[in-house]
Amino acid sequence: MLHIETQPTQTPVSPPTTSAILVIGGAEDKVHGREILRTFWRRAGGNAARIAIVPSASREPTIIGERYRSIFTNMGVRQLEVLDIRDRDQCEDDRYMKFVETCTGTFLTGGDQLRLCALLADTPLMERLRLRVQRGEVTLAGTSAGAAVMGHHMIAGGSSGESPNRALVDMATGLGIIPEAIVDQHFHNRNRFARLLSALSMHPDRIGIGIDEDTCAVVEHDSSIEVVGRGTVTIVDPAKLSGNNCDRVGTSDPLSLHDLRLHVLCHGNRYHLRTRQPLS
Amino acid sequence: MLHIETQPTQTPVSPPTTSAILVIGGAEDKVHGREILRTFWRRAGGNAARIAIVPSASREPTIIGERYRSIFTNMGVRQLEVLDIRDRDQCEDDRYMKFVETCTGTFLTGGDQLRLCALLADTPLMERLRLRVQRGEVTLAGTSAGAAVMGHHMIAGGSSGESPNRALVDMATGLGIIPEAIVDQHFHNRNRFARLLSALSMHPDRIGIGIDEDTCAVVEHDSSIEVVGRGTVTIVDPAKLSGNNCDRVGTSDPLSLHDLRLHVLCHGNRYHLRTRQPLS
Repeated sequence: MLHIETQPTQTPVSPPTTSAILVIGGAEDKVHGREILRTFWRRAGGNAARIAIVPSASREPTIIGERYRSIFTNMGVRQLEVLDIRDRDQCEDDRYMKFVETCTGTFLTGGDQLRLCALLADTPLMERLRLRVQRGEVTLAGTSAGAAVMGHHMIAGGSSGESPNRALVDMATGLGIIPEAIVDQHFHNRNRFARLLSALSMHPDRIGIGIDEDTCAVVEHDSSIEVVGRGTVTIVDPAKLSGNNCDRVGTSDPLSLHDLRLHVLCHGNRYHLRTRQPLS
Repeated sequence: MLHIETQPTQTPVSPPTTSAILVIGGAEDKVHGREILRTFWRRAGGNAARIAIVPSASREPTIIGERYRSIFTNMGVRQLEVLDIRDRDQCEDDRYMKFVETCTGTFLTGGDQLRLCALLADTPLMERLRLRVQRGEVTLAGTSAGAAVMGHHMIAGGSSGESPNRALVDMATGLGIIPEAIVDQHFHNRNRFARLLSALSMHPDRIGIGIDEDTCAVVEHDSSIEVVGRGTVTIVDPAKLSGNNCDRVGTSDPLSLHDLRLHVLCHGNRYHLRTRQPLS
């Protein structure tokens, strides 16, 4: 969020102070308290929100798009559009562009993060959305695959149940909304600690953010994070990393990584991405 | 290993410089290079070793005892006894006591760590073994459950796939061979990061040691560790821990743990338990 290059603003808009970026670890509660989805709804403007749902990560975009439409409609949102992008050309579609120009919230669903990036990255729609998010005009949320795309470097896939090693993780380029982060989701739930460590060994200038299911890192415009939800957000900070052997070992050799700083944050805990400190 | 209270030695024995404590993450290679088992064999004295196998953690002690007997016999060991302890009374058995008095290596197999502790803790046999290990007269190895018992605080069981929380882990008292450590095994293989963190939240004066399968932390008498094997040893150091909410939350509430120091060590990497620093 911080390091995005800005274009000169033609018509300055004073950003609503409520907007934020919500990075959700997947499987957020959709039935009971819906705390995370309600946080998105509130930060996007409550019942006055104009919400775009992007179900493009999913191979069942109609079903998943309608599911979120129903959730936000039930909350009271009246202006809502599912941007059912299945082809990059649709990212120049007039109606979609117009909606993105005026929406106050955008929700990226789960699915396959590579598919989502292949459809959205470097399109007029995505560039416009990115700029509006950066200006604080839009609250952007992404869950699961929609969370994975937030960093510049993206975990595209991988496996689990092994020691950290380079072959454990497939890296690709994400949408760069929070460029300094490498996000992994379903974190403790799916045993992804080793894969996040493996990703960081290749990009030790970033910060690892592992988000559990039904848990959200709410990223504010000053780069502070607050945790909302039922699980934890794990921050792995390699600022003082030493002993990194990732350039010397074969792809499936175990990695060594010394002097990582680790924070496990639960609901209400805060952390600052720029100062790399927990906040009291 | 360091903080064990010593009894005055009646007959000082100069410790062989080769002895060590081997903490093995389970599923060590028994067929091919057998690197870890060969390290134990070598540190116990090679073909001149007198090896005690303690299969008491297992519910199939005969089978597992014979398996290790066959492995070490094939390596060339001629003096070998399976101490098939199924009752605490056997820990005063003359023949077993005599063997423990003269053995140069003892191997604790896998199984159930609670069972192993229930049978061995505070028995004459175990106290004698502990003293001889501390004096450097015996190389002690434990794999899986046999590794779990090494600390004073022991992870007796737990589950995985959840955010760190107190209910995720059952703690008990171990054999206290390396009292400063809380050991977890099959570490990355079985998604045990959250459970080790949960254990540390309750005992932040200890050091967490997560050991992958077919991987061993060789603990020397100066409290340095060297990693041997195919995976990694993860050190979680809570010396600077803050934000620990474990005394304020309900048992299944997610934990917060700030400012942990983390080291991922691979084959050949060294770490010092006393200085809490990786060694070059």
